[in-house]
Amino acid sequence: MNSEEKGKKIMLTMNQERLLGRIRALGATGKDGEGRRTRLAASDEDRQGRDLVAGWMRDAGLEVVVDRIGNLFGIWKTPDNEAEAPLMLGSHIDTVIDAGQYDGCYGVLAGIEVIETLKEAGYTPARPIVIGAFTNEEGVRYAPDMMGSLVYAGGLSVEEALASVGTDGTILGEELKRIGYEGTVEPGFIRPAAFVELHIEQGPIMDAEKVSIGAVENLQGISWQRITIEGAANHAGTTPTAMRIDAGLAAAKVITFLRDRCDHSDGRTVATVGCMEFEPNAVNVIPSRAVFTVDVRNPDEEKLKEEEEALAVYLKQLEETDRVKISAERMVRFSPVLFDENIVRMVAHAAENRGLSWRRMTSGAGQDAQMMARICPTAMIFVPSVNGISHNPEEYTSDQDLAAGANVLLDVAIELSEAR
Amino acid sequence: MNSEEKGKKIMLTMNQERLLGRIRALGATGKDGEGRRTRLAASDEDRQGRDLVAGWMRDAGLEVVVDRIGNLFGIWKTPDNEAEAPLMLGSHIDTVIDAGQYDGCYGVLAGIEVIETLKEAGYTPARPIVIGAFTNEEGVRYAPDMMGSLVYAGGLSVEEALASVGTDGTILGEELKRIGYEGTVEPGFIRPAAFVELHIEQGPIMDAEKVSIGAVENLQGISWQRITIEGAANHAGTTPTAMRIDAGLAAAKVITFLRDRCDHSDGRTVATVGCMEFEPNAVNVIPSRAVFTVDVRNPDEEKLKEEEEALAVYLKQLEETDRVKISAERMVRFSPVLFDENIVRMVAHAAENRGLSWRRMTSGAGQDAQMMARICPTAMIFVPSVNGISHNPEEYTSDQDLAAGANVLLDVAIELSEAR
Repeated sequence: MNSEEKGKKIMLTMNQERLLGRIRALGATGKDGEGRRTRLAASDEDRQGRDLVAGWMRDAGLEVVVDRIGNLFGIWKTPDNEAEAPLMLGSHIDTVIDAGQYDGCYGVLAGIEVIETLKEAGYTPARPIVIGAFTNEEGVRYAPDMMGSLVYAGGLSVEEALASVGTDGTILGEELKRIGYEGTVEPGFIRPAAFVELHIEQGPIMDAEKVSIGAVENLQGISWQRITIEGAANHAGTTPTAMRIDAGLAAAKVITFLRDRCDHSDGRTVATVGCMEFEPNAVNVIPSRAVFTVDVRNPDEEKLKEEEEALAVYLKQLEETDRVKISAERMVRFSPVLFDENIVRMVAHAAENRGLSWRRMTSGAGQDAQMMARICPTAMIFVPSVNGISHNPEEYTSDQDLAAGANVLLDVAIELSEAR
Repeated sequence: MNSEEKGKKIMLTMNQERLLGRIRALGATGKDGEGRRTRLAASDEDRQGRDLVAGWMRDAGLEVVVDRIGNLFGIWKTPDNEAEAPLMLGSHIDTVIDAGQYDGCYGVLAGIEVIETLKEAGYTPARPIVIGAFTNEEGVRYAPDMMGSLVYAGGLSVEEALASVGTDGTILGEELKRIGYEGTVEPGFIRPAAFVELHIEQGPIMDAEKVSIGAVENLQGISWQRITIEGAANHAGTTPTAMRIDAGLAAAKVITFLRDRCDHSDGRTVATVGCMEFEPNAVNVIPSRAVFTVDVRNPDEEKLKEEEEALAVYLKQLEETDRVKISAERMVRFSPVLFDENIVRMVAHAAENRGLSWRRMTSGAGQDAQMMARICPTAMIFVPSVNGISHNPEEYTSDQDLAAGANVLLDVAIELSEAR
């Protein structure tokens, strides 16, 4: 059977038991001293995971290649299709501390499963299919996050990335060499025809709406700022209300202001004040200083800018009304990413074909796909996370949903690897 | 001259240079290893201060007595008046870490100065006059604060107080013995006819209004609570606003709620959220927990209860609207203290007589006088603190204001020590 023969009618089903078995096997590796699943980038635990995945790639008959930033690829090409730009499927297998077993692993392992299923069905794609596992997506040990895909897409030089100093004082380049995953191939050596990333949602929307497949059409822009408000430390008992310059009160007003903005954004803006510190942090002293972070996201760049400007205006106003001094420092800024509409429709269509419920989605989290979107048509497929739990050992997606997502990835891979 | 002879016309003036010189001399003792003025209760530095003050008491011809909790008294009595209940003037000479030089010291040293001035003028009071310096008012090394006066007034047993373990692991009783200030007399051995405490305001009101004398008519009740709000830690990017259970937002609402209450209390209620902690305190995680303190004060017990109840109702409501769980733990609760109206009027009258501006005041801070008010008619006299600064080496009151306050104390002491 080749791609011409199957036309639009082919519907394969991947081997659910093999996929789930591999997710569990990978999830069982890399426990840290406290028994927590922790495979930080370029650690010994990461090596264990990489060895396992590279072994499965070889078992599937793929050519295993590692690039200079440690991105791991399994390549399926034939003499007939090796001249064509490959389709790439993938994600990452590094984890946060005390992680769940799905996250990026699911997308990498489902990619391998797609190839094995296609091979077993005798399918011959019109272009190579490559499975990618990108280095240091989580960014816990080395900054920035999504590093491997960022370097691969040309957004950061490989030298700069390899020189990154970890939270433990190590150098990424040295650690990659130590664990045997510093390759010689230049990142970007394959320019894909398309990239598709299958991932758990990491949010509660699909679980709440009982939707099986997310056709991810875009990824939110992210704005992180650190705000410092300076007030005056005075005695909590002897300072009349009218004479207070309360940095903590001003910080509280910013939090409620941000929620108001979100409430009036038709659900498009989300904002979070996650870190907060008061000084001197004493029961009977009015806070002289409040330092906190603001995380604002919106899938539309203009809207995100509007939110940033509204906050800046509000902070100026607060300096007047509350007599405080405020400074804001930009920490992180990513523009929103629009995924490829053609692939998004393929995902939706594949879900329809299989009788699966689906919806268009925005990715609220950063993903390797946002980097790959810089160099090729890209989209993502989401499956539900129960209660939206992510980055936590309680992260859970039902076997049925995992299988459904992998089958949709399979269908989309077939469509994208057909001759055009 | 005796009290009958002088009638209402006597107006003495204390020796300003002697008083200011002693304030500076006491302020120069007890610097810690880092050069900060720090005479924590029952420390070697406290001993230096006590030795100096006891010496001045003896120089003034006073009988020096130390009670079992280390309260230091200088007693001026004569065969003619020793049968009468004494007038007591005083405060404390222990300090916080890195303290200013005025605080309690001013009231103790002005008391000694009052007696010396009366003696030099040949005045013979109709009752003994006693100067008291109470142990551990600040409560920095041993809890609770205002300990010496609390024990003296019968609010805490001397055994329990002596067994207090310090922040440095020491036992107060052992430390008092070590520095030579564990007396044998029972606290409360003198039941005063009246107690007057002269003190700096420790707040900004008098400085802002350019008022010289505060006739302190009451002392705020104090309510401290630790509030814990439980939300749900979720991803800052992937969790829609409507699905968030944000403990930090709920905490912010409490802060603005409390300010609203204060703004609608005609300046009677003050409230402070001084301590704040978020968990997990990560930029991109919605706070799962906020723990903070609430300090609410009002000079009226009913009003203070109203504020506590309004907060409790609001927290209940917040559990509904924000789907959080809230618990509140009482940390400290002192009822307001009403001072003796007769003495308050004497203070106001003395200020008028001397052409000094004055106002009725509420003490926002806790004071030894609040304990003494349990056992005898009591009031306080305040002088301004520039910019309200207190518990800080920058604490400052002008020489002129210090002299004015001491002269008003002198006038009130004369009136209270006359025969009735």
